Amino acid sequence: MRELQERILREGKNLGNGILKVDGFINHQVDPALMDACGKELALRFKDVGATKVLTAEISGIAPAVTTALHLELPVVYARKHKPITMPDQVFLTLSPSHTKGRMVELIVSPEYLGHGERVLIIDDFLATGATILGLVRLAQTAGSTLVGIGALIEKTFEGGRAALSHLGVPIESLAQIVSMEGDQIKFAVE
Amino acid sequence: MRELQERILREGKNLGNGILKVDGFINHQVDPALMDACGKELALRFKDVGATKVLTAEISGIAPAVTTALHLELPVVYARKHKPITMPDQVFLTLSPSHTKGRMVELIVSPEYLGHGERVLIIDDFLATGATILGLVRLAQTAGSTLVGIGALIEKTFEGGRAALSHLGVPIESLAQIVSMEGDQIKFAVE
Repeated sequence: MRELQERILREGKNLGNGILKVDGFINHQVDPALMDACGKELALRFKDVGATKVLTAEISGIAPAVTTALHLELPVVYARKHKPITMPDQVFLTLSPSHTKGRMVELIVSPEYLGHGERVLIIDDFLATGATILGLVRLAQTAGSTLVGIGALIEKTFEGGRAALSHLGVPIESLAQIVSMEGDQIKFAVE
Repeated sequence: MRELQERILREGKNLGNGILKVDGFINHQVDPALMDACGKELALRFKDVGATKVLTAEISGIAPAVTTALHLELPVVYARKHKPITMPDQVFLTLSPSHTKGRMVELIVSPEYLGHGERVLIIDDFLATGATILGLVRLAQTAGSTLVGIGALIEKTFEGGRAALSHLGVPIESLAQIVSMEGDQIKFAVE
């Protein structure tokens, strides 16, 4: 998606060690118009998978998941990292390694909002190693839902996430594919 | 706002101790169409305050803040509760008591995205005691920004937040005003 790639080139920062800083329009400050355009594009790409629910992880997944779900006219569930007091005692919980935190984090979903018969589309900001998304997949599977697709704003192809998810046999879409972050460069796949 | 009030009456749960569970459409599962309608209404109410930026707190503030900002055509900044590695060493940080966590949480904003000359509209899911919003106000003031308005989806008038914020002299808007949660009832202010 040209608009997102251009924004990454203009404002993204390669901090080294594969860390891409997009805090100016996705991860701390959010550009709602860009998020809406990305959501519209992801909704278009997944319009035929028959999703009944969008699943994401707090925190940075929320904005793209909400705009995607808005265009698909579906509810979104965001997995929580801390169990709030409003959640029942019995929950779906999995552990997932956090690249930016350097430790395991919990991903928690209430059985009230994810269950048998749901057809789940996972949307997140990044597809890197695929670890967070695999955590969401485990939650969906444990809930008895069927995974129907995986979408991300930005894919770092050199971290292997797509290969780690390929056994799931569902369409995987990303709007900007970064193939290399050598030095201070950011190189995209040729579309 | 009738649509939000009706949804609260239909699906909200009074858990006692003033805790309103709206996990089915705001706080865990999100109804994007409802969030968009709420954002449109908040944008309408604040169209003349001259805001240049919307400020909220992760996590539950993100969806309504993004939809409000979308309709106002403004960027959103969400204060983080944990400093990510992409943030500079020097940040704006304040402590705020969390009602649902029973402890103080940090609210952190990078000086990169909030500074002198900004006119800040604060949007959050709840206006209860006003403590989180006062934390966001301190961040905006420390950054040298000017506060121009405060908006929330749901106000619990019996927790006194509006009074705690009145000295700020800015318009305060909420889309559903709950005046009492005695027993298992949820009573709204008469519009």
